[in-house]
Amino acid sequence: MNTPSSLESLIEALRCLPGVGPKSAQRMAYHLLQHNRTGAQRLADSLQRALGALRHCQRCNTLTESEICARCLSHKRDPKLLCVVETPVDMNMLEQTHAYSGLYYVLMGRVSPLDGIGPGDLHLERLLARACDGVVREVIIATNYTNEGEATAHYLSELLKSRGISVSRIARGVPVGGELEYVDAGTLAQALRERRPLAD
Amino acid sequence: MNTPSSLESLIEALRCLPGVGPKSAQRMAYHLLQHNRTGAQRLADSLQRALGALRHCQRCNTLTESEICARCLSHKRDPKLLCVVETPVDMNMLEQTHAYSGLYYVLMGRVSPLDGIGPGDLHLERLLARACDGVVREVIIATNYTNEGEATAHYLSELLKSRGISVSRIARGVPVGGELEYVDAGTLAQALRERRPLAD
Repeated sequence: MNTPSSLESLIEALRCLPGVGPKSAQRMAYHLLQHNRTGAQRLADSLQRALGALRHCQRCNTLTESEICARCLSHKRDPKLLCVVETPVDMNMLEQTHAYSGLYYVLMGRVSPLDGIGPGDLHLERLLARACDGVVREVIIATNYTNEGEATAHYLSELLKSRGISVSRIARGVPVGGELEYVDAGTLAQALRERRPLAD
Repeated sequence: MNTPSSLESLIEALRCLPGVGPKSAQRMAYHLLQHNRTGAQRLADSLQRALGALRHCQRCNTLTESEICARCLSHKRDPKLLCVVETPVDMNMLEQTHAYSGLYYVLMGRVSPLDGIGPGDLHLERLLARACDGVVREVIIATNYTNEGEATAHYLSELLKSRGISVSRIARGVPVGGELEYVDAGTLAQALRERRPLAD
């Protein structure tokens, strides 16, 4: 009398998506089967194709279809700068600024003890090997300014500095266009503490 | 330099899920490829299997793997009562009450002019044929008490009554356990208007 088994497994399988609980999974399954079978077929195919085609770039660790991604192979990028980010999305955000022409290393995660992710899970030896290739002059750590991102940045900087690599961190402070009245106290306190001298 | 094409198509394909915009689709794709490839494979397989196996029950229109679903075939249900609901989820909610032993008809939608869904899109001739089988004595309309659900109920009741079928609507009013202080004015107004006489 209950839900057919193929429908039940679809609902269960949809729950592997982040932020999708039992209710949304049910709604998604019915929506696909009733209103968008073409979309569902395309999703199944795309998943299959992406799983087959995508792997990690040997140099920057992002997802790519080749051995080494196009950005790492490009001659237009400055190989002396290496920017460490948590995810490919963060890398895209930085690219959109058009303010950086160096290369990247994507951690594909962050140190997060509460989720059971320690430094060992991030395969940092690959980042170390990348940063110590003799060409990289400066590693810019661009992890998030969350607790986990900060812990990751701290751990990384210790690790890299012990190898004699020069390390920097993207600035934090009042956002561009931000009014002090609406900035949270923590950000404002850091902006004060990390104030920088102005040239004459 | 950009996102690999198989990743881009996956992100695009994930947007067929209801409530998933470009940002969530991106997050989902990276999550699946980085942290849950098994889940992604299972999702692709389940979609494929569900698309192949599931069709509409010839009698009640719900999703089933057979010609006629188990509930419609059951001898324990009262065939004189037919309850019309919008979705299979609504049917499951009614079943969970254990207060109904009749059969169902699932509209798989509602009249919603704003979304371009008119009565014609709901294939109501199938419901009419089902309700006029000579066995059904009463059709209980259990569409939602939203604007669309109400419009659907009104349309259905006119249609069914014109064929001489007796039609009822599930009650609306103050929820069980509800305190008047916290019930919205619209509900309270209806509860007053639709008050029922108490037996002595």
